Amino acid sequence: MRLRSLALAPAALIGFLMTSDTLQADEGMWLFSKPPLAQLKKYNFTPTDKWLEHVRLSSVRFNSGGSGSFVSPDGLVMTNHHVGAGDLDKVSTPEKNYLRDGFHAKTHAEEIKCKGLELNVLIAITDVTEQVEQAVPAGTAPADAFKKRTAKIAELEKGAAAPDKNIRADVVTLYAGGQYHLYTFKKYTDIRIVFAPEKQAAFYGGDPDNFEYPRYDLDVCFFRVYENDKPIKCEHYLKWSAAGAKEGELVFVSGHPGRTNRQNTVDELKYLRDTGYPYLLNRLNRLEVMLQAWGGRSEQNAQRAEEELFSIQNSRKARIGGLAGLMDPKLMGRKEAEEKRLREFIKLSSDPNIAKVEAAFDAVSKAEKVRTELIKEMTVLENAGGFNSASFGIARTLLRASEELPKPNAERLREFADARLQSLKFQLFSDEPVFEDLETLKLADGLQFLAVTLGPDAELVKKVLNGKSPRERAYELISGTKVRDPEVRKSIFAQIEAAAKGGKAADLAALKDPMIELARLVDGPSRELRKRFENEVDEPKRQAHAALAKAKFKMDGDNVYPDATFTLRLAFGTVKGYKEDGKDVPPFTTFDGLYKRAAEQHNKGPFELPQRWVAKKGNLNLATPYNFVCTADIIGGNSGSPVVNQNAEVVGLIFDGNIQSLVLDFIFDQETARAVSVDSRGIVEALRKVYDANDLADELTGKKG
Amino acid sequence: MRLRSLALAPAALIGFLMTSDTLQADEGMWLFSKPPLAQLKKYNFTPTDKWLEHVRLSSVRFNSGGSGSFVSPDGLVMTNHHVGAGDLDKVSTPEKNYLRDGFHAKTHAEEIKCKGLELNVLIAITDVTEQVEQAVPAGTAPADAFKKRTAKIAELEKGAAAPDKNIRADVVTLYAGGQYHLYTFKKYTDIRIVFAPEKQAAFYGGDPDNFEYPRYDLDVCFFRVYENDKPIKCEHYLKWSAAGAKEGELVFVSGHPGRTNRQNTVDELKYLRDTGYPYLLNRLNRLEVMLQAWGGRSEQNAQRAEEELFSIQNSRKARIGGLAGLMDPKLMGRKEAEEKRLREFIKLSSDPNIAKVEAAFDAVSKAEKVRTELIKEMTVLENAGGFNSASFGIARTLLRASEELPKPNAERLREFADARLQSLKFQLFSDEPVFEDLETLKLADGLQFLAVTLGPDAELVKKVLNGKSPRERAYELISGTKVRDPEVRKSIFAQIEAAAKGGKAADLAALKDPMIELARLVDGPSRELRKRFENEVDEPKRQAHAALAKAKFKMDGDNVYPDATFTLRLAFGTVKGYKEDGKDVPPFTTFDGLYKRAAEQHNKGPFELPQRWVAKKGNLNLATPYNFVCTADIIGGNSGSPVVNQNAEVVGLIFDGNIQSLVLDFIFDQETARAVSVDSRGIVEALRKVYDANDLADELTGKKG
Repeated sequence: MRLRSLALAPAALIGFLMTSDTLQADEGMWLFSKPPLAQLKKYNFTPTDKWLEHVRLSSVRFNSGGSGSFVSPDGLVMTNHHVGAGDLDKVSTPEKNYLRDGFHAKTHAEEIKCKGLELNVLIAITDVTEQVEQAVPAGTAPADAFKKRTAKIAELEKGAAAPDKNIRADVVTLYAGGQYHLYTFKKYTDIRIVFAPEKQAAFYGGDPDNFEYPRYDLDVCFFRVYENDKPIKCEHYLKWSAAGAKEGELVFVSGHPGRTNRQNTVDELKYLRDTGYPYLLNRLNRLEVMLQAWGGRSEQNAQRAEEELFSIQNSRKARIGGLAGLMDPKLMGRKEAEEKRLREFIKLSSDPNIAKVEAAFDAVSKAEKVRTELIKEMTVLENAGGFNSASFGIARTLLRASEELPKPNAERLREFADARLQSLKFQLFSDEPVFEDLETLKLADGLQFLAVTLGPDAELVKKVLNGKSPRERAYELISGTKVRDPEVRKSIFAQIEAAAKGGKAADLAALKDPMIELARLVDGPSRELRKRFENEVDEPKRQAHAALAKAKFKMDGDNVYPDATFTLRLAFGTVKGYKEDGKDVPPFTTFDGLYKRAAEQHNKGPFELPQRWVAKKGNLNLATPYNFVCTADIIGGNSGSPVVNQNAEVVGLIFDGNIQSLVLDFIFDQETARAVSVDSRGIVEALRKVYDANDLADELTGKKG
Repeated sequence: MRLRSLALAPAALIGFLMTSDTLQADEGMWLFSKPPLAQLKKYNFTPTDKWLEHVRLSSVRFNSGGSGSFVSPDGLVMTNHHVGAGDLDKVSTPEKNYLRDGFHAKTHAEEIKCKGLELNVLIAITDVTEQVEQAVPAGTAPADAFKKRTAKIAELEKGAAAPDKNIRADVVTLYAGGQYHLYTFKKYTDIRIVFAPEKQAAFYGGDPDNFEYPRYDLDVCFFRVYENDKPIKCEHYLKWSAAGAKEGELVFVSGHPGRTNRQNTVDELKYLRDTGYPYLLNRLNRLEVMLQAWGGRSEQNAQRAEEELFSIQNSRKARIGGLAGLMDPKLMGRKEAEEKRLREFIKLSSDPNIAKVEAAFDAVSKAEKVRTELIKEMTVLENAGGFNSASFGIARTLLRASEELPKPNAERLREFADARLQSLKFQLFSDEPVFEDLETLKLADGLQFLAVTLGPDAELVKKVLNGKSPRERAYELISGTKVRDPEVRKSIFAQIEAAAKGGKAADLAALKDPMIELARLVDGPSRELRKRFENEVDEPKRQAHAALAKAKFKMDGDNVYPDATFTLRLAFGTVKGYKEDGKDVPPFTTFDGLYKRAAEQHNKGPFELPQRWVAKKGNLNLATPYNFVCTADIIGGNSGSPVVNQNAEVVGLIFDGNIQSLVLDFIFDQETARAVSVDSRGIVEALRKVYDANDLADELTGKKG
């Protein structure tokens, strides 16, 4: 479940380079423009350009943060249930809960249009490294370099995009700034829901089984892409494999890994190990306990907290797995050896441009010190952990919009740039319910966290609390603000846009909204922190990593793959089990295993079988493979990626990694790290025998007229 | 549920003094030797010496950490189900789970003898302040003072005890060393279980409703005290009130509040608010999340983690409530005003002995700085948070026993003193199961916590981890140690005692047990820390608080009550509801409310009604009062205290405090803080109508032949 991408969060992207010499056998998230031909030789398989183009054009990016693929000539798209969950939720009503109960359109007419979902298909890749580099002359000061680069990128994107033809263009930073590629996408915005199982089948085992293996999840759902109110006709789509995958078989994963940090220097890893992860885990634990405890008080509370609770549990588990990896002296030893090799290469280089890269290690190290110094304040102020509530987020967005929109596009805070305004408004105007009781709970906790972090006697804290306890103050703010009403938000934003057109900031103070005033109270220190963080952490690291990446190029040549950036990548591996605490974990599970797990847990809680699965058990071939693992190199964002064989036929659908795979953020490991997929045979068997969806199964397997 | 005492934990006791001028109306945990006569005048009630003696001799202390009372002439003792839970568990078998399912002995012969339970009745109080003070001449250095005082106290206790007559004597430190009282107890050790409801009725609503109100809990159980294999005959026992309590009625609570910190200086409170509580909460959250997640994986895991998980949730909730109080500027303002008043009195005093007390504030402040400096290391090393497992605890106890027992009694670590050896052995030899999987989970987490706290690159951490990841090292240690086998422990301890008799330490190194060797590896730094903590934190604070307490005496006279010390106290208050978020919370709940709460929550999880309660609903008078709240001043340790009326008749049974009462640790508040009791009428109605226990109800109400 964690494989939904985190890439869309505003965070510095950090690149990665590795040579084939030091690569592990099945390592890598390869660019389609630079596929792992050398690595695949040992499998006696060489993908042709046509093979690559076909797989690329059959692959789909969900702008909500996941991957997918075309699986029929009629625009049918397959992804994970958990990737489609937000869309299922948005079209649900109090009477019809499609997220919980599932959905099946028997005809095109019954397919339901999604709200705000965008899919992208990568149609062209152009290297624009030179243009971007020329825009930033050597010796430009960091803050200025950032501005100049951003402006150039915006210009390139604008030039390549063709909104009228639904062509979108993004400049992608690769190798931590070592290369810039212009990716051109075909963009689809009329996406309709075709099929989803009930959540309890898709996410069987719930949080307890999340990141674990063996697994028994039907984490799949299907959408259809429309244009001009008709299903599109796909030239490129993945055919269904009749046989499925075998143990030991070579398979490929085509998807959008969100973000990896394999380029991290040892100092950066130590920052995460010693400061970043422990601090974040403290916070996640705190929020999880708070929501669990409150949710336990009543069913209504539990429902209100459910989604956020799951997302926190998911992050918590991911970080615990990552921290366990960072604490493993063997993995850290490999990173240290890698770094030593690079440092020596740099030291001995006769090229003065390379030799001076040595300073980059120190620059990173210095940036990590600043990060350590700022992390706590950043978390409570700019990241709003001290004001944890949707209400504060809305209020601050309104306040900042009134200040940012009158500015020229290039000078605005990133999230208020013209290119991002539409998505910002979409989120801001969402009519998703915000519950006053949950808001008060979270804000009270946030204010206490603020007080503990900055000290209750700090002037800013005293001003924020205004002589009240965190709980009293939270109650006052949440019950006093008007920003939870979407109509109020729309009307305020309209004022802001109108004023901005006249080059002015709207007078929000006149509204006397207590939450907007709170946002105003802390915005000065908050913006200052962010600026310092961008100038003293993000930008020096970006530059240092670009330099390090170039030195690595020089050292090892160009047979390398860049860190994940939520762009399309090709990974490969073999279907293979692993050992855990001395025991063998076999690669495949079956439907039989599902029923056994349910029986073992007395069919309770997250292990309860959906009613339909109880009733239809007799129909199923219980020996059908259900889930399987392979060694392919994946990360969050790969959710929904198709797993294909050498004939580019679908054999599975990525939906998770095992707990051992959580180190893949920093370092590949093929001993025990595994990608977890739904088996293509399990999907078809379930569609036919449990869901009476022969129409859909026929469309997948090509039996449809 | 948190009202079980924490007093038995090794922690410094800190005293408290308040005058009637500054006291809130119903404030105080009063000594029976100094009852709140002045405070009770406004109620037009003056307890006579006979009344006080009767209530005192009817009151019982559970050495397992709770309170109780005699409620029949035949030695029947009433307490909470959660106070008796450990004893119910100890006598349960795989076939008969009395803790979960309840128990009812219809005849004396069916009553089950408890394992290791001791009850005490306070029969005499003697002031020994002078003797203790004379043993420590003015100007004695802290470390030496501690030794001399401890030796004198041991001598006084030995002189007053009469083991052959089951007379036990404890010197009780009151007013933070302002007074020392010698308490003489009649000790009972043949205690048998008479009745307990099923846990689901006793702890209805589980963790979600813990510390909350309204409540619907039958948190009661009954024991009987035997001597010479026969029920004792009680001269003093509490009669049952026929009418129960009315709203607004004056009631008394006689019990053993474990520990309060109302004497705390503002610097101490700020330490707790800014460092101690947030740090502890981080740790509790972490453990709670770990056990919840692991427990969710299977029913067996859940059962294994259950008890520890609940205890952690209970502490977590208590600390959150306490922290909320410390964060309330109004409560902190009251504490600041109190301290200012004392500081001014000291400054203006013409008595040089008082004037010099000013330094005590600085001494406390200095001690708190050392505490802040040491808290993290203390937590992971001496408090063993870095080695979180029963196995490590056992291994360290064995190692230290081998080193401590050969020393003279007065020079040993406190827990190895002769007086404590029996209880230490009782715990050490317990055959309570210790599960290897849970031990590995906890130790791996502990080792990671150790590494995060001291830094993974610290020499000690490297030695502890020995080149492995925390998980690998934990697995190696837990699967390698033999100390989880009670027979092995007994045999090692026998060796230790035999060697100690010859004045030598047993050679435990010869055992080559990896866990004992781990304990040895960290014991040097751990003992050093503990010594520093005792000398630089505990002892200076003890002395400073004794001095401050004397200055307070001087300022306000002696109409004051000392901080709680798990000794018998009398509290009083009125039956009264309160306001929460603007709404009235009425003082009483009824059986009707119980059934409504269950229906509202679809009778699920912690809100599921026991089968018996579903079946017997028709028998019950649903309007019977079930639980109620009053303003009496209580704290952990008061669990099981009887609530009596002016005629010393039982009207209720304390079992909890509401969430607002959690500040009572530091400051009394009668606006919203409330003690929560089971109503005496609810107890009898349930006994007769749900449990068919007319015999027991007759004995309570005096209807028995």
